[in-house]
Amino acid sequence: MDKVIEFLDANEKKWVERLSQNVAIASISCSPDNRPQTIEQMHVADKMLKELGCSTEIVDLGSHTMHDGKSHPLPPVILAKLGDDPNKKTLLIYGHLDVQPALRSDGWDTDPFVLTEKDGKMYGRGSTDDKGPVLGWVNVIESFQKTNTEIPINIKFCLEGMEESGSVGLEELVRKRDDFFKTNVDWVCISDNYFLGKTKPCVTYGLRGCMYFYLEVICAKQDLHSGVFGGSVHEATVELSHIFSSLVDVKGKILIDGVGKEVDDLTEEEMKTYADIDFDMGAYQADVGTNKLTEESKAKLLMRRWREPSLSIHGIQGAFAEPGEKTVIPGKVIGKFSIRLVPSMSFDHVEKCVKDHIEAVHAKLGTGNQVKCYLAKGPGKPWKAETTTPNYQAAIKAVEDVWGVKPDLTREGCSIPITLVFEEVTGRSVLLLPMGSSDDGAHSQNEKLNKINYTNGMKVFANYIHRLGKE
Amino acid sequence: MDKVIEFLDANEKKWVERLSQNVAIASISCSPDNRPQTIEQMHVADKMLKELGCSTEIVDLGSHTMHDGKSHPLPPVILAKLGDDPNKKTLLIYGHLDVQPALRSDGWDTDPFVLTEKDGKMYGRGSTDDKGPVLGWVNVIESFQKTNTEIPINIKFCLEGMEESGSVGLEELVRKRDDFFKTNVDWVCISDNYFLGKTKPCVTYGLRGCMYFYLEVICAKQDLHSGVFGGSVHEATVELSHIFSSLVDVKGKILIDGVGKEVDDLTEEEMKTYADIDFDMGAYQADVGTNKLTEESKAKLLMRRWREPSLSIHGIQGAFAEPGEKTVIPGKVIGKFSIRLVPSMSFDHVEKCVKDHIEAVHAKLGTGNQVKCYLAKGPGKPWKAETTTPNYQAAIKAVEDVWGVKPDLTREGCSIPITLVFEEVTGRSVLLLPMGSSDDGAHSQNEKLNKINYTNGMKVFANYIHRLGKE
Repeated sequence: MDKVIEFLDANEKKWVERLSQNVAIASISCSPDNRPQTIEQMHVADKMLKELGCSTEIVDLGSHTMHDGKSHPLPPVILAKLGDDPNKKTLLIYGHLDVQPALRSDGWDTDPFVLTEKDGKMYGRGSTDDKGPVLGWVNVIESFQKTNTEIPINIKFCLEGMEESGSVGLEELVRKRDDFFKTNVDWVCISDNYFLGKTKPCVTYGLRGCMYFYLEVICAKQDLHSGVFGGSVHEATVELSHIFSSLVDVKGKILIDGVGKEVDDLTEEEMKTYADIDFDMGAYQADVGTNKLTEESKAKLLMRRWREPSLSIHGIQGAFAEPGEKTVIPGKVIGKFSIRLVPSMSFDHVEKCVKDHIEAVHAKLGTGNQVKCYLAKGPGKPWKAETTTPNYQAAIKAVEDVWGVKPDLTREGCSIPITLVFEEVTGRSVLLLPMGSSDDGAHSQNEKLNKINYTNGMKVFANYIHRLGKE
Repeated sequence: MDKVIEFLDANEKKWVERLSQNVAIASISCSPDNRPQTIEQMHVADKMLKELGCSTEIVDLGSHTMHDGKSHPLPPVILAKLGDDPNKKTLLIYGHLDVQPALRSDGWDTDPFVLTEKDGKMYGRGSTDDKGPVLGWVNVIESFQKTNTEIPINIKFCLEGMEESGSVGLEELVRKRDDFFKTNVDWVCISDNYFLGKTKPCVTYGLRGCMYFYLEVICAKQDLHSGVFGGSVHEATVELSHIFSSLVDVKGKILIDGVGKEVDDLTEEEMKTYADIDFDMGAYQADVGTNKLTEESKAKLLMRRWREPSLSIHGIQGAFAEPGEKTVIPGKVIGKFSIRLVPSMSFDHVEKCVKDHIEAVHAKLGTGNQVKCYLAKGPGKPWKAETTTPNYQAAIKAVEDVWGVKPDLTREGCSIPITLVFEEVTGRSVLLLPMGSSDDGAHSQNEKLNKINYTNGMKVFANYIHRLGKE
């Protein structure tokens, strides 16, 4: 193992270069214009795995209709196997290579698609979410091989290019391909989340789900001049603002009747776990850059992020969003909001509550506008795992070996919808093993991955593989 | 005069071609990228006026900082004179050659910058607002000249390229240049508004003003992942929605304390004028394409548009506005709204009411977010004129001659901020003489000018000049 670690250290430049090459591919899965790059990125991944000696399969998922009303081919899923020794157990690794949208004009200090290193941080879209971790696995396997160190387990990869857009087609594939996912899988590892703070590593056993809603309001068949028509129409943006403000208060309390009903009660045992977690409220607040958080105690704030639903208003499509002054009454606007789900909230109940609420508010407002609320495809369920399994124990010890500190056991506020599917289909322990830090800015401007998280993260992966080999 | 009318009829193709050439220049004054075209458009106008024999002056207004943070040269104002016969009176004509933004992807059926004729309608950005009317004057003067018909008055032109962006620099110029605006001006005519309905012409004696507000809310120093952070921050979009919904109700009633206080009382005399106006509520509703208007009676609806303030929410800058699903908590958003002013509302009072209101609502919400409300440059005052002047009477008769129907005396909901300045500086009667129809879609997708409005509009201009010559 020491040789592997040494090799990882000695080839740092190569690993950064590999990340740089992949960040340069603008694999924005929600953008029709970027679909070719997203597909290209998957083929690049396939090539890398082939070079490691994996047997790979490029799984065509067909096509789907995107928001431009046109049909586009889906990025393929790459299924790969390395080793099929019946005397070894098998680890299934999941990752994604698509990214969120990013424009320099959104407020990036550097080109989002040029990996730029500064003060030990590597800036670029996808650096931490999730290209860095995926390439980390590739680098680790290469390091085992180049140092002639036997990999003590069989490895399977499942890499997708639609995670940021609801993982369209993946669940179906996983449920269909028992030969790959159900047979010969002993553990599952997903590295697509973040440390709780900036420096202390953690291992994660819970996730929130997500339901993304479109809220369409139409007041006119086209945009109107606000001078000519102002005062005579029930403006769509005004109705949307009234409905938005009926969904959630400014402290984040969801005002939709029934949405909190299914949330698991807090047990005393769970309550206790919050006390020991290393979480610096001051640092968190400073990172967010806000004057005031919604809660004043550590436990309450973590519970708000991990075990309570939240509702975010993302924006409005169809309204005036550019700089400058446009005196327009938008004729049709689509509000976007989402609800983060926690155990044991269900899609059907939440969807019904949301739709009933909006219908009732709209009816009360009495505008006569056309109002329609619909759920985006691919909602994600919430999830919680047992941490006593060998999978979790191997990871916890690997982290401790590399970082010299026992990782916190955490949950995450965000969603990785496929986690639950892997658990159901494989029937095995699914582990979330983060590489990046809380301030990496996934989905934001200036997304980055700390160099130390990349290098230590790879050592954790190597150590974890080594420890699983002893099981 | 008959020769002029004949010539106008015979050269229709030429007038359409001239409009087409000018529509092709994307003179979007609010866009830094389009500033060169906006400047070019003014030089094209100067050339046309020179070809008519005008003595012209290209007035440099210096430069200003645009929303990209950079300094850009302002489009020049063109001041032109045709004739200086001391025995003739002088008409000052104002128009603008800049346009609102337009993208094919906004929902235009044709390229906004290619004039496209279909079923007697000429589609293109600026066709009706305000290139069509400005070129109408040019065509009319050419027709007098080519038919050797003496123009019975002196004519002055003031053409600008910043009307859609607050007419930056124009008011200052008008107030400074007494030699042009105060000396030797007997009447002023502005053709930058619309018929009340689709077909019946009108002459307009009132306008609403406009104050455009930016409402900035900052909850974080950058955008945040809604999964990771949702529930822990006072989201800027949520606070903005709550403030927006506190400004105005869905029926358009302004909820800001004090804003309606300065509105002129409705006199019985004014009330009576609404009865005779030709206004088809059903057609108006169908044009808007809405299920329900804010008022059910013609008089009340017209009053809402002409003599009452309105508040429109235009959109949000900084939130997610694209198609698709982005799970972002925007860190900084800028809401855009504007208030249409009516006599005798004042800028200072309205600004104070708005700022006090927002401050109070924000304080009550208690988010700790940074909230800032500020007024865009160049607010426009409301305006109302006397219709008994020779200027109005000449126009009313000219319309009746050409269209065969007595025009309605109307007011407009929109703003032409310079109207009031012309009235103040010249001390003369300012007339609004519309060429386009109510359904032209100024500022909207598929802006158009009916061919009949263009051709008859030119005949009205010619007849009006002829009648003024008799005063």
